[in-house]
Amino acid sequence: MNNTYAAINNTFVAETEARLLISDLAIQRGYGIFDYLRTVNGQPAFLDDHLDRFYHSAAFMNLPVQADRAQLKQLIHGLMEKNNLPHSGIRLTLTGGYSENGYTPAQPNLLVTQAPFIFDKNAFSKGIRLVTHNFQRQLPQVKTIDYLQAIYLQPHIAEQQADDVLYHHNNSLRECPRANFFIVTANDEVLTPAHHVLKGITRKKILAFSGLKVKEADIQLADLANAREAFITSTTKEVLPVLNVDGRPVGNGTPGRITADIYERVLALRG
Amino acid sequence: MNNTYAAINNTFVAETEARLLISDLAIQRGYGIFDYLRTVNGQPAFLDDHLDRFYHSAAFMNLPVQADRAQLKQLIHGLMEKNNLPHSGIRLTLTGGYSENGYTPAQPNLLVTQAPFIFDKNAFSKGIRLVTHNFQRQLPQVKTIDYLQAIYLQPHIAEQQADDVLYHHNNSLRECPRANFFIVTANDEVLTPAHHVLKGITRKKILAFSGLKVKEADIQLADLANAREAFITSTTKEVLPVLNVDGRPVGNGTPGRITADIYERVLALRG
Repeated sequence: MNNTYAAINNTFVAETEARLLISDLAIQRGYGIFDYLRTVNGQPAFLDDHLDRFYHSAAFMNLPVQADRAQLKQLIHGLMEKNNLPHSGIRLTLTGGYSENGYTPAQPNLLVTQAPFIFDKNAFSKGIRLVTHNFQRQLPQVKTIDYLQAIYLQPHIAEQQADDVLYHHNNSLRECPRANFFIVTANDEVLTPAHHVLKGITRKKILAFSGLKVKEADIQLADLANAREAFITSTTKEVLPVLNVDGRPVGNGTPGRITADIYERVLALRG
Repeated sequence: MNNTYAAINNTFVAETEARLLISDLAIQRGYGIFDYLRTVNGQPAFLDDHLDRFYHSAAFMNLPVQADRAQLKQLIHGLMEKNNLPHSGIRLTLTGGYSENGYTPAQPNLLVTQAPFIFDKNAFSKGIRLVTHNFQRQLPQVKTIDYLQAIYLQPHIAEQQADDVLYHHNNSLRECPRANFFIVTANDEVLTPAHHVLKGITRKKILAFSGLKVKEADIQLADLANAREAFITSTTKEVLPVLNVDGRPVGNGTPGRITADIYERVLALRG
């Protein structure tokens, strides 16, 4: 992270000097939203999709963004130029600001950070194992900074020899903390939970794929027993096969044909 | 706030210079715990109760506290000496620390801040109005920094001309975001929700009062219709009568006799 710059509001600062006053409502009350996108070969991928969601999250949480879209793009490109990290992750964070009383939002602080990110092409063949947990994220449609439950569960996930947690709400499937979840049914339908989840950008791209029976649906925990394949999607993971949930294999327990097809198509999209 | 000092880990800094790096997991992922106590005439009230809860919250969330109890008391007293604010609120915050990957907790940052606080003796006679909302806080037994839902609801509370929100989970009463909730039944029983709420220090003191039929119970939203009185409790509010919930008066809509009695006893406790 040496010599990497970040932007705080309109100012570039060395990341090692990038600080917020502790009166910020993110620190006081966990109040903030963010988005995360990747640059590939020096190009931000799906920038407008991410900015759409960022501004939507901000508006939903009553946090005005001082920078309009053109200004924010300029800030992002300015940071990319300073940092010269062609393969990276860029995070936009908007906090509740320096609150006078530690509770009422003030003028939000806008943070833009960048870190090297190289996509791991070996992850697909290994796949992942999930452990389920009954939990409904609050305000799930918004990309808030709230990962309290997910981070709290990390030791439990490790104990269960799993790679991540899959939330369900009273047996109705939801998502992973940082990824959407899909199953492939015995009829080759590709289903992802319709409601009460974050609408991921990769999820959105897959829902628009032609030639596949892909759709949003209500999926129950019990449906996993009959699923032929399962996978998760996210900006950093692209598509990862889920081989095992709560110790039981999904399908034959190896990466599936339709998952592999979707993976190739997603990779091609990001360039 | 001029010339007020705060402590970050073991160092006193002017509050206007008290900052955390933006890699802190509170800013990145809303991960942290805190506690809040008052000083009255230069004396911390219920200090050991608050420290018990602070260390319990920290341990529950897998956040080691670098300072043991004696060291933390010394830090608090050192800050009190520097600030010379005899009537104040002191907040202890423990964050997830400067995370390398923005997700895995690191060595926590310990913040101690102090601000003048004068208890408002006029608030009792005015009482408060509440609006209900179906919501279960995550990890409710821990005093985390998560107030996402509460702050998100502020405009809604104002629209409903209420002073605060009362959470229920599928009609089972819980708490306010920063206060516990009690009702007084037609039989003069004083009841407070038993489970899935933060165990407030004022609540704990009231549960130990003699000469009252006070106990933890399951309370339904519908029980409000027959309640004779209702009140909330917290460190800053002590005891406040709830005169109205969702636009319907509680009892006769004025501060009740048992509530007033408990208020006087709580005031006497804090000295």
